[in-house]
Amino acid sequence: MTKPIAIQGIKGSFHHEVAQQYFNPKTEVVECMSFDSAVDSLLQGDTDYIVMALENSIAGSIIPNYALIDNHDLSIVGEYYLDVQHNLMALSGQSIASISEVHSHPMALLQCKVFLKDYPHIKLVEAKDTADVAKQISEEKIKGIAAIASKNAANLYGLDVLAKSIQTIKHNETRFAIIKRQNHQIERKELNKASLKFELDHKRGSLATILNVMSDCKLNLTKIQSLPKIETPWKYAFFVDVTFEDYKDYEKAQSIMQLMAENFKVLGEYKNARL
Amino acid sequence: MTKPIAIQGIKGSFHHEVAQQYFNPKTEVVECMSFDSAVDSLLQGDTDYIVMALENSIAGSIIPNYALIDNHDLSIVGEYYLDVQHNLMALSGQSIASISEVHSHPMALLQCKVFLKDYPHIKLVEAKDTADVAKQISEEKIKGIAAIASKNAANLYGLDVLAKSIQTIKHNETRFAIIKRQNHQIERKELNKASLKFELDHKRGSLATILNVMSDCKLNLTKIQSLPKIETPWKYAFFVDVTFEDYKDYEKAQSIMQLMAENFKVLGEYKNARL
Repeated sequence: MTKPIAIQGIKGSFHHEVAQQYFNPKTEVVECMSFDSAVDSLLQGDTDYIVMALENSIAGSIIPNYALIDNHDLSIVGEYYLDVQHNLMALSGQSIASISEVHSHPMALLQCKVFLKDYPHIKLVEAKDTADVAKQISEEKIKGIAAIASKNAANLYGLDVLAKSIQTIKHNETRFAIIKRQNHQIERKELNKASLKFELDHKRGSLATILNVMSDCKLNLTKIQSLPKIETPWKYAFFVDVTFEDYKDYEKAQSIMQLMAENFKVLGEYKNARL
Repeated sequence: MTKPIAIQGIKGSFHHEVAQQYFNPKTEVVECMSFDSAVDSLLQGDTDYIVMALENSIAGSIIPNYALIDNHDLSIVGEYYLDVQHNLMALSGQSIASISEVHSHPMALLQCKVFLKDYPHIKLVEAKDTADVAKQISEEKIKGIAAIASKNAANLYGLDVLAKSIQTIKHNETRFAIIKRQNHQIERKELNKASLKFELDHKRGSLATILNVMSDCKLNLTKIQSLPKIETPWKYAFFVDVTFEDYKDYEKAQSIMQLMAENFKVLGEYKNARL
């Protein structure tokens, strides 16, 4: 029997949408109110997978989530790009003029701030989860308050969409990771992307040298992010994603990088969702 | 006459502390409730400088702030590292046992989550500003609610510190930038750090090539962050910080990078605060 999937947020959230699209539309989910509790449910064996947002076009990488994967030795076994479309929604029969507050996740408010600037009468209030606000408005029949959430949430909780796709960047992609306790055993020939972490001393050219190795081994870099290691000044951790055509090339690069960098770690090997 | 400094948050906030330490303890500030409104005050000429958090050890870079600097063609003219110590505070006469809710900025709650896990009876509530909660508790004499904020905020608003330095990472540095409309004219020999932005095609080795140039020109990389350009697939923007000893080396690297990368832009040249 398959276990449910842990998602951050409730049904109707963007994480829920990813779970449905990556697995299947009827996938059972465990609603978690934080990324931490999603990890707990995985570690306790209540779920087999977590769906976890990793980066978006406005905020960049969600570093605390990389830390969760790293600290608990979890594996990224898949990725999914969702085009996140935000919609302003409220109880049926209301117009934008009758809305005095909009409640949503800080990131959603940030992504819609250009639209909201045109409605200075609406007060912005930060909330924990986009879909949860929609659910509350619906269940408690709250007037005068709007949610910013997905079309799914509007359908699920029976709210009217007052304005569609109100985020500033129209093609607003968020990258989600599918996470497991251990890396699964999928065919090597299907693997063409990896997420790696390593550390380097702050020595001139040390990163350039590593990137040269990666380039020589025919790896393509699709993401790089440095993070100073505060406990050890002048040491940096790097999170990189690479794509490759031949697993052998990647394997070769990996064995060289293991020698050249400190604390080299594979956070996951999976199939590139961007082919 | 000097104009006041725009800070995000109110007096007693960490931005306020940076303004006092970077300029002087009596610096007048304009309290702004968002980074956007801080930028507005600068553009309207109400202030000459903004103090703006740029990155911390837990969340990494605050990308929306890089976007504000970039989009409004502002200049980073200085940097400051503040060791952010979070304290749990409440009205005098209360103990942790009598606290039922703690209100603070999501980032502060995140940074203190290990401490807070030991007090499951305390509900976490997200708020806009760390110091603002302290001010409200003080002014409205609210019992049962604690704030997480700086020692300065406790002093300023007369609250009792119930627990000191409750953040998980004891040495918890945040990097702040000092921002102006145009780059100031300071002596070149005093400049030894720069923040740059450039774009590259997703071609194997393109970043390695640029980093080689930087290394050949004796630049040290202290930060790198890629951001996919969603409007143009396969294009990446990179935000990098470099340090150098001789401005001429930096100038040479800059002229080569301008030819090799697209949309090369200097976000600021300033004095390294980490010497």
